[in-house]
Amino acid sequence: MHFASDNWAGAHPTIAESLAQHAGGFAAAYGSSELDKKVEQRFNELFEREVAVYFVGTGTASNSLALASVNRPGGVTLCHREAHVIEDECGAPEYFTGGARLHPVDGAHGRIDPANLRKELKRFNPAFIHAGQPMAVTFTQATEVGTLYSLDQIAELSSICKTHNLPLHMDGARFANALVSLDVSPAEMTWRQGVDIVSFGGTKNGCWCAEALVFMNPDRAKDLPFIRKRAAQLFSKTRFIAAQFDAYLQDDLWLDLARHSNKLAQKLAAHIDASSQVRLAWKPQANEVFAIMKQTTYDRLQKAGVIFYDWNPPHSEADKISEGEIFTRFVTSFANTEAEVDQFGALIA
Amino acid sequence: MHFASDNWAGAHPTIAESLAQHAGGFAAAYGSSELDKKVEQRFNELFEREVAVYFVGTGTASNSLALASVNRPGGVTLCHREAHVIEDECGAPEYFTGGARLHPVDGAHGRIDPANLRKELKRFNPAFIHAGQPMAVTFTQATEVGTLYSLDQIAELSSICKTHNLPLHMDGARFANALVSLDVSPAEMTWRQGVDIVSFGGTKNGCWCAEALVFMNPDRAKDLPFIRKRAAQLFSKTRFIAAQFDAYLQDDLWLDLARHSNKLAQKLAAHIDASSQVRLAWKPQANEVFAIMKQTTYDRLQKAGVIFYDWNPPHSEADKISEGEIFTRFVTSFANTEAEVDQFGALIA
Amino acid sequence: MHFASDNWAGAHPTIAESLAQHAGGFAAAYGSSELDKKVEQRFNELFEREVAVYFVGTGTASNSLALASVNRPGGVTLCHREAHVIEDECGAPEYFTGGARLHPVDGAHGRIDPANLRKELKRFNPAFIHAGQPMAVTFTQATEVGTLYSLDQIAELSSICKTHNLPLHMDGARFANALVSLDVSPAEMTWRQGVDIVSFGGTKNGCWCAEALVFMNPDRAKDLPFIRKRAAQLFSKTRFIAAQFDAYLQDDLWLDLARHSNKLAQKLAAHIDASSQVRLAWKPQANEVFAIMKQTTYDRLQKAGVIFYDWNPPHSEADKISEGEIFTRFVTSFANTEAEVDQFGALIA
Amino acid sequence: MHFASDNWAGAHPTIAESLAQHAGGFAAAYGSSELDKKVEQRFNELFEREVAVYFVGTGTASNSLALASVNRPGGVTLCHREAHVIEDECGAPEYFTGGARLHPVDGAHGRIDPANLRKELKRFNPAFIHAGQPMAVTFTQATEVGTLYSLDQIAELSSICKTHNLPLHMDGARFANALVSLDVSPAEMTWRQGVDIVSFGGTKNGCWCAEALVFMNPDRAKDLPFIRKRAAQLFSKTRFIAAQFDAYLQDDLWLDLARHSNKLAQKLAAHIDASSQVRLAWKPQANEVFAIMKQTTYDRLQKAGVIFYDWNPPHSEADKISEGEIFTRFVTSFANTEAEVDQFGALIA
Repeated sequence: MHFASDNWAGAHPTIAESLAQHAGGFAAAYGSSELDKKVEQRFNELFEREVAVYFVGTGTASNSLALASVNRPGGVTLCHREAHVIEDECGAPEYFTGGARLHPVDGAHGRIDPANLRKELKRFNPAFIHAGQPMAVTFTQATEVGTLYSLDQIAELSSICKTHNLPLHMDGARFANALVSLDVSPAEMTWRQGVDIVSFGGTKNGCWCAEALVFMNPDRAKDLPFIRKRAAQLFSKTRFIAAQFDAYLQDDLWLDLARHSNKLAQKLAAHIDASSQVRLAWKPQANEVFAIMKQTTYDRLQKAGVIFYDWNPPHSEADKISEGEIFTRFVTSFANTEAEVDQFGALIA
Repeated sequence: MHFASDNWAGAHPTIAESLAQHAGGFAAAYGSSELDKKVEQRFNELFEREVAVYFVGTGTASNSLALASVNRPGGVTLCHREAHVIEDECGAPEYFTGGARLHPVDGAHGRIDPANLRKELKRFNPAFIHAGQPMAVTFTQATEVGTLYSLDQIAELSSICKTHNLPLHMDGARFANALVSLDVSPAEMTWRQGVDIVSFGGTKNGCWCAEALVFMNPDRAKDLPFIRKRAAQLFSKTRFIAAQFDAYLQDDLWLDLARHSNKLAQKLAAHIDASSQVRLAWKPQANEVFAIMKQTTYDRLQKAGVIFYDWNPPHSEADKISEGEIFTRFVTSFANTEAEVDQFGALIA
Repeated sequence: MHFASDNWAGAHPTIAESLAQHAGGFAAAYGSSELDKKVEQRFNELFEREVAVYFVGTGTASNSLALASVNRPGGVTLCHREAHVIEDECGAPEYFTGGARLHPVDGAHGRIDPANLRKELKRFNPAFIHAGQPMAVTFTQATEVGTLYSLDQIAELSSICKTHNLPLHMDGARFANALVSLDVSPAEMTWRQGVDIVSFGGTKNGCWCAEALVFMNPDRAKDLPFIRKRAAQLFSKTRFIAAQFDAYLQDDLWLDLARHSNKLAQKLAAHIDASSQVRLAWKPQANEVFAIMKQTTYDRLQKAGVIFYDWNPPHSEADKISEGEIFTRFVTSFANTEAEVDQFGALIA
Repeated sequence: MHFASDNWAGAHPTIAESLAQHAGGFAAAYGSSELDKKVEQRFNELFEREVAVYFVGTGTASNSLALASVNRPGGVTLCHREAHVIEDECGAPEYFTGGARLHPVDGAHGRIDPANLRKELKRFNPAFIHAGQPMAVTFTQATEVGTLYSLDQIAELSSICKTHNLPLHMDGARFANALVSLDVSPAEMTWRQGVDIVSFGGTKNGCWCAEALVFMNPDRAKDLPFIRKRAAQLFSKTRFIAAQFDAYLQDDLWLDLARHSNKLAQKLAAHIDASSQVRLAWKPQANEVFAIMKQTTYDRLQKAGVIFYDWNPPHSEADKISEGEIFTRFVTSFANTEAEVDQFGALIA
């Protein structure tokens, strides 16, 4: 019963096979191979426009370089108070931007509250240089806590950004999970709502190590080759990333894998909802489920071989947890099975 | 006839197979899996001591984080004037150290001249803070120009470092090529000569993407987990690197691949030596061959399908190239064949 | 009626005179002059222990270098949500630390709430490297909103720091104003309560440009000469700072100036308290007074020649301001007079 | 006999007086005072065009922020091998640019050799991102070794920069000394020869602490307010710098002081030239004199109370110094007298 994280899974067999198949022969290094170009073209089709795509090795790199590409002196990026960029990347975004600040904005259930975003932006005044200058807004889709922004909610963030002339970045580490849950196209979930830059994640959804930084407007990305190389994220044998994406994006594999994960998360949530020993923190919308339980239950589950994490509760929810209760996270992936989930369900029934 | 670079090759079949084999099942993420631990243990055996090993994605990352780990305010790292760190990493070492300087030292045939190193170090004076403070010496083995440091030459660098209380870092992007050419053990080529930190490269010698940062003294590395994560080099599914190294280091595969590359380089050099149209810049000792030719020969070879690069000549050799001549680089890899090399030989005979 | 800021005043005549007096003759540059040494010795007496003192040019430099001196990879400094370091230094602390994060902690009236500090620190776990590692706590005395930490409140912050093995830094841009208001000694307000590093400000209290970074434990400061020089804060003719401090710290000038400013702030607050047109946001304890008024009053005061700023209200107080009301700041300095304050009082009576 | 450095002098009486005179009264902080604006206007007149002027506290800050303002990812600035930026600023330019590299170019007598500059620039190729991208050329006028670039030599550097589309920066720490020696106008020595950015130094020539960063094209400087503030170089009471420049630039005081220093340097050089115990390293053109002497002479002069430094010889001259000889530097300033110089002359006669 492996619910620790979607990155505890390995690579999907189809992706592993693609890698093996492309291992032979010579190909131009540093992103210039035929396969690299084919996959870049695939991204254009996916997003229904000409985009600029840069492969990198980790989601942290993808987010950090997205922000580095829109960096300004005294720059401030607004994000949710518990965004991955601010809580889980060990300061990489600040490091790669030479110290641009991440400014936390509160909001329930992992979503930036638009009213709070407006209020925080008001605190900056172009003439008051001491406060620095806003440089971007970044949000996570699906969010860090397994919820989603609806298309309208994305459009609202984007409309605020436009008022302040700020680019909008989407951390799409779980892009596919959000996409299939909303049942929309990549274009609809991104640039049609005003998203400018996307960290397009493949790793958590069945790849070994495949992340793409996608700029909806290629002009924004003209320094990216230097930004990526300077950040040690230009792989010499980039086709090893291209080969993963090639398989991932073919025949809707990526969407199928995400649908599987999401379905299991729904099933897992249903088990919890039906249980008297564990309660859902909120309704999951992607492949992460947050639940609250007593220490005794926690210990019993761990002993029974359920692998999951205790987790820092979001500030907005912290007072809903009583003394002695534990806030926990369960994540499902392409590699989990219904049987596993039902086995867990039986444990808490 | 692919002699552009050893990173134009893909992955060796044995390594590709290992990856495929480890794709299934769950494993702890972020470097804690059984396989990660097994490979770390393998490095201990390899170096005949307990070392600290950190997997990263690129050689540039490995070198940059090595220097970041010994960083000091106003820090200066001395390196060869045409070292990879200073000429080929787009400023990554300076970027990852927040601006520590690389101070170039001259030397013939890609090797730091110990007399020059001593002279340059003399220019720094602990009481004269304006000059900054030396923080490390880094050298490349095999060098950027396909030559080697003998054990004695390494020991001499190390002895200078000890006088100045500086750590000595080896950029071992082509560690295996150097090792088999010198016919010594990893311990002999490193810590027994006083090397403190090694960037141990696997990518150029048959892996997809496998680099290890090895600290001979684990105490030096205690901040590395944060240094690596902050640098976006902590992969979630690290076993994809571990699986490569596992196969690479088994049954002397890595040594066999390096021997093959080096042998082809020797053969290629022999062809050049015998040719009246191309001349060797110097005698190669690993898997890179540098040669000088006229434009007409250059064009003819390119047209015949020989893939190789023209290259910036080292400062120390620049005046040996006449007007109209072109300085070029040929690299052999595990994926090249004798036939390919002989085909090239026939072209220049 | 100049209440815009204490940095709209120039230099106190005694300080100007000291500068003029030391303008002649030769003296060793870069902090080695006799005068530099004399003033350093004066700081030892002031703090009743041997401290390490580094002159710098701005309060922002002082705070940023304090944090740079305790920097760690993935480092996080906890501070009040509206601390000067996070709101008013244009990202300098993040910039000078190469991206260490400032983590905001809520608290009423400009003071870090100890319970919140404990909670936020709990979110960090040495084994969970993704979150980074706490590296310091910094607080401002007097606070950004004109209040003070009592000795006990400082001791409580320090006790939390000790539990987590973190250095405690005091931003003392208005050190003197706090000191005379609490009526304690420098030692009592700092190291006797567990403060490790102090940004000791002179500029806002009558100097031109005189800030000192004071380390209670000189061992902590051994890299400071390089940290300061690399940050372009090592002045060649440092005696121009030393000469200011020499006069500032002589015959209690600094305390007299601070008492004067604080007294005028109390008077100004009394006028506001007595007014029906303006109300105090809270009781001032140093030389800054925050007040709330209607737009019409605001316009009338501006037109009458009162110079003051509208200000972003602290998050903790934002809901106490009604729609249409303006949050404002008045600052008094050594250069203000009672007459000026009373003239203002008459305007709002 | 104080010849250690021009920064061992204090402030010229006229400048000290100006400071004292402006100490009283209130004025807008952070560069917005009337006096700030008046001095900015004075710079426009001086340079015979509308320039953008930013006051900073040190020459190191001025140079570093000049480079930060033209920073690019993977950026490389070419400078003389012994330029102040690379040898004497403790890595500040690399630090403030987040790791942009300084690339040394050889040249005799402290001047960048244009042929070498062209050769080094050739090593960069826009398509070869590994090498990074040139971002600027910086040169020092007067040079670090007391020589000058003629107008034609400046124009040649600028012409090379234009070919490569690079801004040209002048480190003018001793701008006035160069200007009076060449007997040209500020416009002639800068933008009329194609210089884009000037670090205009006042400190070494009679100010306490007055440096100005001057952009010939104000459009280039639009981010400077944030760049300066983030770098902790925005002083609150900027009029203390403005007051110095106000006096410095009035009635040709700055030119008179520089003429005085230069004249004494010529006299000092003449004494050396006439001596059999000391020899000139080369002919001085500004206010720095470099000389070579035996240890016995060195000791005797030190004992006689002559204050001067031994110095690292430039690489280009290192082999002209015999074993046992000492390379030394003598600097004259506004505060030295003819008598002092003649007293020294008598000692070596």
